[in-house]
Amino acid sequence: MRILSGMRATGKLHLGHVLVLEDWKKLQDNGNETFFFVADWHALTTHKEESHIIYQSTLDIVRGYLATGLDPEKSVIFVQSAIKEHAELYLLFNMLVSVNRLERIPTYKELKENLSNRDLSTAGFLTYPVLQTADILIYKATGVPVGEDQLYHIELSREIARRFNSLYKEIFPEPNPIVTRIPKLPGTDGRKMSKSYGNIIMIDETSDSLKKKVMPMMTDPARMRRTDPGDPEKCPVWDYHKAFTYNQEELDWVVKGCKTAEIGCVQCKKLLLKNMEERLKPIWEKYEKISDEDVLNVIHDGNKKASEVAKKTLTEVREAMNLRW
Amino acid sequence: MRILSGMRATGKLHLGHVLVLEDWKKLQDNGNETFFFVADWHALTTHKEESHIIYQSTLDIVRGYLATGLDPEKSVIFVQSAIKEHAELYLLFNMLVSVNRLERIPTYKELKENLSNRDLSTAGFLTYPVLQTADILIYKATGVPVGEDQLYHIELSREIARRFNSLYKEIFPEPNPIVTRIPKLPGTDGRKMSKSYGNIIMIDETSDSLKKKVMPMMTDPARMRRTDPGDPEKCPVWDYHKAFTYNQEELDWVVKGCKTAEIGCVQCKKLLLKNMEERLKPIWEKYEKISDEDVLNVIHDGNKKASEVAKKTLTEVREAMNLRW
Ligand code: SF4
Ligand code: SF4
Repeated sequence: MRILSGMRATGKLHLGHVLVLEDWKKLQDNGNETFFFVADWHALTTHKEESHIIYQSTLDIVRGYLATGLDPEKSVIFVQSAIKEHAELYLLFNMLVSVNRLERIPTYKELKENLSNRDLSTAGFLTYPVLQTADILIYKATGVPVGEDQLYHIELSREIARRFNSLYKEIFPEPNPIVTRIPKLPGTDGRKMSKSYGNIIMIDETSDSLKKKVMPMMTDPARMRRTDPGDPEKCPVWDYHKAFTYNQEELDWVVKGCKTAEIGCVQCKKLLLKNMEERLKPIWEKYEKISDEDVLNVIHDGNKKASEVAKKTLTEVREAMNLRW
Repeated sequence: MRILSGMRATGKLHLGHVLVLEDWKKLQDNGNETFFFVADWHALTTHKEESHIIYQSTLDIVRGYLATGLDPEKSVIFVQSAIKEHAELYLLFNMLVSVNRLERIPTYKELKENLSNRDLSTAGFLTYPVLQTADILIYKATGVPVGEDQLYHIELSREIARRFNSLYKEIFPEPNPIVTRIPKLPGTDGRKMSKSYGNIIMIDETSDSLKKKVMPMMTDPARMRRTDPGDPEKCPVWDYHKAFTYNQEELDWVVKGCKTAEIGCVQCKKLLLKNMEERLKPIWEKYEKISDEDVLNVIHDGNKKASEVAKKTLTEVREAMNLRW
């Protein structure tokens, strides 16, 4: 399969991203052809007033890609805005999709309401899924790892591929979504992760800073005293255990210990901390070692490879549409 | 002033276009810096199902540009889709304009209703004025010759220029519309020009074919018999006189002769025919002599020049927006 996915350049990566990246790494190491990019144009749809964030985020994100094991020898790692052909294909695809169809995408209205502090009334935000479609189809990707909220967008990509193929020429395969069951991580206080709550564990913590974030984590409020039994399903610490504790015996120990009050929350968190550190330390170490120069080299290399594929597709597209310039 | 204008690649040019081109030629010869392009991407908004027409139209239109006196030594003559930076700037500008603002442009609803046989429900058609804005601003044009119906689009371009300048950096001048009073030509039967009515005089007639179109032209229906007086204002032949008869005495002769029935419609049309031929013959001759190869050479040359300017603007834009790839 040819796999494509990307992350928006709107800030530094956190643990939620790390879980996704570990998943991408599996796809990379399982013999697929993999393309991973940083979506800096997409970032503009929500962060146009903070464009200074976007460049630094782009570097940080690629650093995160590399630190979690994406390998430039195996994957094409590139930056969206470097491949100008995405913009051209986006323009052409805009001719093939109705305004109505875009307005009906459930995530469109939802996001507009949820992010009411951002200006999402723009044509750029409306046509965001069309740019996504261009991102995917330009590489003729057949598999796209996505969260469930992105399924609507893949459906649109499939429609646009069909529409183009029937109107002009059979050029694009219909991409398939790859939905992976990645545990959702809440913020350390149990609320949604949010910079303004200060409840996020980042990709580049230290043993010390991790400890300072894990030990005071919110737990099941029922465990007021050490002797009160609890319910892991009501506890964010348990969400983290599900992502970072692989040993079944340990998991059983937590569930049983919590429900019977045989263990205290401090013990429970110490186990989590040990497991998280074990898994994250190699990432921290790599992340720290990778210089901006390393990152830039990877990007320039990846851009070149991505550009070749994109240019080839656009040549086919222009020919099919009689745009021979 | 730096002037920019273009025509959509949706068919061959007719006399209405010739009048516009003569106007452009004046702007070219008056010491302005002039950029004239063929809008083939724009053509897709209404003609996506007939993309085969677009390439041939592009060549025919440039042939028409040259035949009416646009001069590649003085003007940059190019094709929109050859300058990929237009697409990139279009994408970026889409972030700066609201869907609502685009829907409120009076021509949007009007055209959607008038061209109900075309699929104008697309995101491409909605954002058409944003692409126009990119076309204009990428060359930092300060003057744009337009018909009155395009004034709304120039207003949008000015808004987008202001929005970009205030959000990022003072890069774009606000373009001014240049509205010229070009006589409107009806079809030879008095209805709107339309291919399906067969009532159009093209840019490349012959003396013979012109005669065959002018002599049977619709006249004021009041002149049933030679002796019935008429009213030029109710006669399409008079619209053509206003465009092609420069001599005031001849014009007076028509008006007086028509109103008093001193002249017949045949006499009137013969005068028109003489004046049209005088003005159009040089255009026909040039049009005939210009080969596809000549046209391609002009385009390739113009594309190179346009591309240089466009690339320079985009470099500034990317820097201002921190998109440094
Ligand atoms: S024991 Fe563990 S799972 Fe149970 S409430 Fe405490 S921290 Fe949460
Ligand atoms: S005389 Fe001329 S202007 Fe008058 S009706 Fe005849 S053609 Fe028309």
